[in-house]
Amino acid sequence: MDAATRQLIFEDARKWVYQAGKQIRDQIDDPYQIDTKSDANDLVTAVDRSTEQFFTEKIREKYPTHSIVGEEGYGDKVESLDGTLWIIDPIDGTMNFVHQKRNFAISIGIFHEGVGEIGLIYNVMEDVLYSGKKGEGAYRNQDKLPPLGEQVNLETSIIALNSSLACENKRINEKKVQQLIKDSRGTRSYGSAALEFAFVAEGIVDAYLTMRLAPWDFAAGLILVEEVGGVTIQANGKPVNLLEKNTILTCNSKIKQQLLDEYIEFK
Amino acid sequence: MDAATRQLIFEDARKWVYQAGKQIRDQIDDPYQIDTKSDANDLVTAVDRSTEQFFTEKIREKYPTHSIVGEEGYGDKVESLDGTLWIIDPIDGTMNFVHQKRNFAISIGIFHEGVGEIGLIYNVMEDVLYSGKKGEGAYRNQDKLPPLGEQVNLETSIIALNSSLACENKRINEKKVQQLIKDSRGTRSYGSAALEFAFVAEGIVDAYLTMRLAPWDFAAGLILVEEVGGVTIQANGKPVNLLEKNTILTCNSKIKQQLLDEYIEFK
Repeated sequence: MDAATRQLIFEDARKWVYQAGKQIRDQIDDPYQIDTKSDANDLVTAVDRSTEQFFTEKIREKYPTHSIVGEEGYGDKVESLDGTLWIIDPIDGTMNFVHQKRNFAISIGIFHEGVGEIGLIYNVMEDVLYSGKKGEGAYRNQDKLPPLGEQVNLETSIIALNSSLACENKRINEKKVQQLIKDSRGTRSYGSAALEFAFVAEGIVDAYLTMRLAPWDFAAGLILVEEVGGVTIQANGKPVNLLEKNTILTCNSKIKQQLLDEYIEFK
Repeated sequence: MDAATRQLIFEDARKWVYQAGKQIRDQIDDPYQIDTKSDANDLVTAVDRSTEQFFTEKIREKYPTHSIVGEEGYGDKVESLDGTLWIIDPIDGTMNFVHQKRNFAISIGIFHEGVGEIGLIYNVMEDVLYSGKKGEGAYRNQDKLPPLGEQVNLETSIIALNSSLACENKRINEKKVQQLIKDSRGTRSYGSAALEFAFVAEGIVDAYLTMRLAPWDFAAGLILVEEVGGVTIQANGKPVNLLEKNTILTCNSKIKQQLLDEYIEFK
């Protein structure tokens, strides 16, 4: 994708994100329907659905040749990374949306022939937009994010992870996660994968580790993290797959290998 | 303490909190010295110290008969709850202050003859003040916080706790904490005890459990939580002690007994 095309698409995407965000803020105290999906804690609301529909309508009208993958299913059945692809989570952190009325984000990643071109993560209630374009850096609102620190080490790192990773489970060695919790400076858990990616890009947490994310949870984030020199991989070290669910490690590159070697072990 | 006296002290305390907060915001990007206290992750900065000094000077000038307990040691040697006592954490969440430049708070609890009269928790960078006066309710800025929900149950609760509670340790049964993580809707960890108290008072998390807090970490928070009908106790169910370190459970009253009975077991 050439820079001019990227800029045009970026400007449209940003405009639509701000519009959708304002709609959500205006409705935040209105009643809405809450349903569950895969389990009792996998929430979806009418606001998730209407927001995704808003984006799909805008994109199809302006960019009819582009493909769309959306969490709520209003996109296309996409089986390849050919062409230009929008990967959308209308509300990332729906549990926070429902319980807290804040700490959730709109997440949009735009890829061309499988290459990340544009990432947008909008903290709706704080009105903070994290944005990035391939090769052009990442921003928090108007402020360019500096490259991630070179001096980071694990002992002074803050790691974002859900406490469930420290619990007995069938997938990873929880004892090693417990050791990570002890060896790092501290852990945090915010309840929105997109925001946790944004915080890695911002350098206010140094890594985010999680066992199951869909493409819409990380599509925007991986572009932002890459633009500040960070890395996003599967938790086993392999490249992420944009068409399926993945384990995810996104972090400052300086601590990647130590995290993989010493703290993440699959059963 | 009569209502008029409480109001006068409240207005002074609030004014000083806003002044101290502005000083911190104005200096947030300046270099400052960082030291460690009890361990390598127990941080203290020159800003913690200067902020506590600011408060102790103001209080001593205006209220020379009042006592002061402060995290950084500029207060008095207090061994009883007689008279009027200010319990101050100039920066609660110093790790966040250092690593994130946000998500920290000024916390001030004011007690008279051992009774909580005034609580102030100021999220400095967001400019959000949580405040409460005995019998007069709690506020988030100008908005009165509603009483905590009556319909809360554990399965739909969000619990604030540090992931270290799920790790092998000598104090509590980590298996029961792991079960709590599985049985609740989700967990969060924000890195500031004062803010976690404020979030309980606001009802955006339903409980906060932690194994070691000093009086300055919870003095303001317990007043706010009480004003919305919540409860703050030691994690073994006993009343908290304002003069020493405590384990702490602060929560919506509806889930207190279940948390104590089913999920918290000391070794």
